[in-house]
Amino acid sequence: MKKAVVLLSGGLDSVTTLAMAKAQGFACYALSFSYGQRHDSELQFAREIAKSYAVSGYKVVNVGLDSFGGSALTDVDIEVPVSGKRSGSQEVVIPVTYVPARNTVFLSLALAWAEVIEAQDIFIGVNAVDYSGYPDCRPEYIQAFESLAKLATKAGVSGVSFSVHTPLIRMSKAEIILQGLQLGVDYAKTVSCYMADVAGRACGLCDACKLRKEGFEQSGIADPTLYASSSA
Amino acid sequence: MKKAVVLLSGGLDSVTTLAMAKAQGFACYALSFSYGQRHDSELQFAREIAKSYAVSGYKVVNVGLDSFGGSALTDVDIEVPVSGKRSGSQEVVIPVTYVPARNTVFLSLALAWAEVIEAQDIFIGVNAVDYSGYPDCRPEYIQAFESLAKLATKAGVSGVSFSVHTPLIRMSKAEIILQGLQLGVDYAKTVSCYMADVAGRACGLCDACKLRKEGFEQSGIADPTLYASSSA
Repeated sequence: MKKAVVLLSGGLDSVTTLAMAKAQGFACYALSFSYGQRHDSELQFAREIAKSYAVSGYKVVNVGLDSFGGSALTDVDIEVPVSGKRSGSQEVVIPVTYVPARNTVFLSLALAWAEVIEAQDIFIGVNAVDYSGYPDCRPEYIQAFESLAKLATKAGVSGVSFSVHTPLIRMSKAEIILQGLQLGVDYAKTVSCYMADVAGRACGLCDACKLRKEGFEQSGIADPTLYASSSA
Repeated sequence: MKKAVVLLSGGLDSVTTLAMAKAQGFACYALSFSYGQRHDSELQFAREIAKSYAVSGYKVVNVGLDSFGGSALTDVDIEVPVSGKRSGSQEVVIPVTYVPARNTVFLSLALAWAEVIEAQDIFIGVNAVDYSGYPDCRPEYIQAFESLAKLATKAGVSGVSFSVHTPLIRMSKAEIILQGLQLGVDYAKTVSCYMADVAGRACGLCDACKLRKEGFEQSGIADPTLYASSSA
């Protein structure tokens, strides 16, 4: 079985990505990060998901992105927006929930693990449709990372080419949900909210919640998300 | 004053790089990493150096590269070589002190900080001469990272180009030392050894020690390194 490192945040997208990697026959090594995110409860969900998918390996790695701040997700002084500006909008404004260089840091660490376990494949659930404002979710960025990975590593020098798989990159949230349900994903056990409480209950108001809600509406599937009572 | 993020390990190369960045007129933001390295005493040296250079900012960021292992520098089960094979050798064999994807992880975090403080310049003391075995010390790797950085960031999307400065990349260790001395670097206050003890005393035997020793010999400068008595 070919090995793959799968980035797993505990959200809807990354779980679907894990399910897809598994369906493609990869032995999956799931990787989560503790990076000072507001919504630390996602790590509890990620751990449970890794367990339920019987992954071949699972790690939660510390990385101090909160040392730098500069994002609503890592800096408590920057408010998470609930304005709804992005939802359904055509404008491409990078939101304050953008974490500087986050996917580059995450993919670098995935690459480190991939090299150690001799995997050539990395899966990341980025999406260029819903999150068109995030520069590090675009296909051209992913390709640039693949080129870098070959130059950066001992494995690359020895002839290995790393593939960064982004199976969701062109899918709408509704398509992702339908794909996941086909593969048996239990979305009640995922959390996407930027401000989930300690029990993992979603706020229902932030951009991540709105996109998720819309996804369930558009897919015609009942939304299994557990919302905090105040936003129910 | 233009801002620059300078990677600072506390070793000979990174201190020289910091001195050069400062001499070029940059306001320097020095960045060290606690990544489970064997030679943790280098962080004490790095802190002192940052202080003595009166940097504009200094951070020590945690990043769990030791979660993955795969290197003599992060995995206690892999021995640091003292065979001397690399010193003076023409063969390009990547040593076991190579840490998978380390410079990619470090540069990614430097990029994160650079974006937050609105710096466009990153300095890293990589060297393609002495360390020709490390893939992530080569000019083509650095160029690939610059391309990635532009695609990866909000700043890049807004038209910013990041420069990764590698002033030492083509210099011999002796040239680096002479350059540093011209800029007033006190090499007694640096530690390069892969196995330095808690007081920062060098083993005198590992590859890093050998390269450093040779550098002082070839530059005709007395070696100020504090060696552990057993290797004196």
